[in-house]
Amino acid sequence: MAEDAKYKLYYWDGIQGRGEFVRLAFEDAGVDYIDVAREEGEGMGPEAVMAALQNKKTSFIPFAPPFLTYGDVTISHVANILYFIGPDLRLAPEDEDLRIFVNGLQLTLTDFIAEIHDLHHPISGSLYYEDQKTEAKRRARYFIDERLPKFLGYFERVLTQNRDGNMQLVGKRVTYVDLSMFQLIEGLRYALPNAMRRVEDDVPLLLALHHTISQRPNIKAYLGSKRRLGFTGSGIFRHYPELDISA
Amino acid sequence: MAEDAKYKLYYWDGIQGRGEFVRLAFEDAGVDYIDVAREEGEGMGPEAVMAALQNKKTSFIPFAPPFLTYGDVTISHVANILYFIGPDLRLAPEDEDLRIFVNGLQLTLTDFIAEIHDLHHPISGSLYYEDQKTEAKRRARYFIDERLPKFLGYFERVLTQNRDGNMQLVGKRVTYVDLSMFQLIEGLRYALPNAMRRVEDDVPLLLALHHTISQRPNIKAYLGSKRRLGFTGSGIFRHYPELDISA
Repeated sequence: MAEDAKYKLYYWDGIQGRGEFVRLAFEDAGVDYIDVAREEGEGMGPEAVMAALQNKKTSFIPFAPPFLTYGDVTISHVANILYFIGPDLRLAPEDEDLRIFVNGLQLTLTDFIAEIHDLHHPISGSLYYEDQKTEAKRRARYFIDERLPKFLGYFERVLTQNRDGNMQLVGKRVTYVDLSMFQLIEGLRYALPNAMRRVEDDVPLLLALHHTISQRPNIKAYLGSKRRLGFTGSGIFRHYPELDISA
Repeated sequence: MAEDAKYKLYYWDGIQGRGEFVRLAFEDAGVDYIDVAREEGEGMGPEAVMAALQNKKTSFIPFAPPFLTYGDVTISHVANILYFIGPDLRLAPEDEDLRIFVNGLQLTLTDFIAEIHDLHHPISGSLYYEDQKTEAKRRARYFIDERLPKFLGYFERVLTQNRDGNMQLVGKRVTYVDLSMFQLIEGLRYALPNAMRRVEDDVPLLLALHHTISQRPNIKAYLGSKRRLGFTGSGIFRHYPELDISA
């Protein structure tokens, strides 16, 4: 992206991960950003992400990627980053009350994503999946039977009850939380295709939202570009057939 | 609290839980709030929390307690609530950049708290602890050895590197994230006393912060009042000796 971009995103290279929720917002808005770990040159590359985390001088140290810098400001956590950049990207409601509600939805997504991650890491992030597979299989059963329909059903209700229209979660226009919802459904379909097929009939508005977002010109172009990384065996969304249900 | 309070907090009665991070902010600020589930009368009590969650008319439905209402606005998630009420309670920095950094710290605390909860519920929130005790014991070992020192060490660094002073996490004055940090240390000392003794020598500034907050007049009064619920067997912080390490 442009070298004079104001926004620098610090995240790992090679995976979509949590950074992808931020990338999608920039891409949809067509706003330049620097994906620091994936660029070369001074102050770029994965080393720059590590250096920022280990900085001993600034007051503003993040706990973990993704984080964003914008001038002197350092913003950590996906929801916080999206809240911060939303207005500039024209992906946040202008009404402050709605903006706070969007933030609440994004934080519900954050919780959901953490549960999805822990599907394959129920014991520890420092152990290989293979070393916690027994526990993962047990956890996945409860996740698929209880949590997956509960979370998706909640977002379907939010779409149903949005008095300004059922094509977006909040207000009259697409906001960043709609983009994150698109990514969540993409990821779930990749990770748990059979479990998703079982619940999709119950969430028609969510599927329509997913489709609408996929057709937005900038999103479509991004998904077809080399900038969009594929799902891998080391992101949030992982496809282990033994964690899914039977077809 | 006063019947004309503008803020209504919706959370479960009987436990501190995630609601306590919000209660502490109101109590410290001396700002009236209604703790809906714990009051009697029309629109009060635990039924009112359930009714708000099941509301079929409003666009603004929360996923889970705690949530707050303020006039027509509904705000869900602890970090979002604290971000919203912080300025009115004079518990947020006036500088917008610092306010965003406080929000990032609060979200790091949110992640930490979710990991602490999953110590006793690594498989499913719908199973009893006894039915996931084997997995809990395995998870606790990694939590105590890796995650506990990592999170506490991070916050200690934030205190150390705060250029405006080491008595609060951000800027020159106490903010709501300092109050949340107090509660976190209270909870960890209750849940994992031996593990905490092992790490406390490494986080002197955090312990000093904990002490300072405990001595604030409104906090001290609150902790000694009947409004402050005790730790129980059903909150986030639970004391199961088999999850702690030996003395």
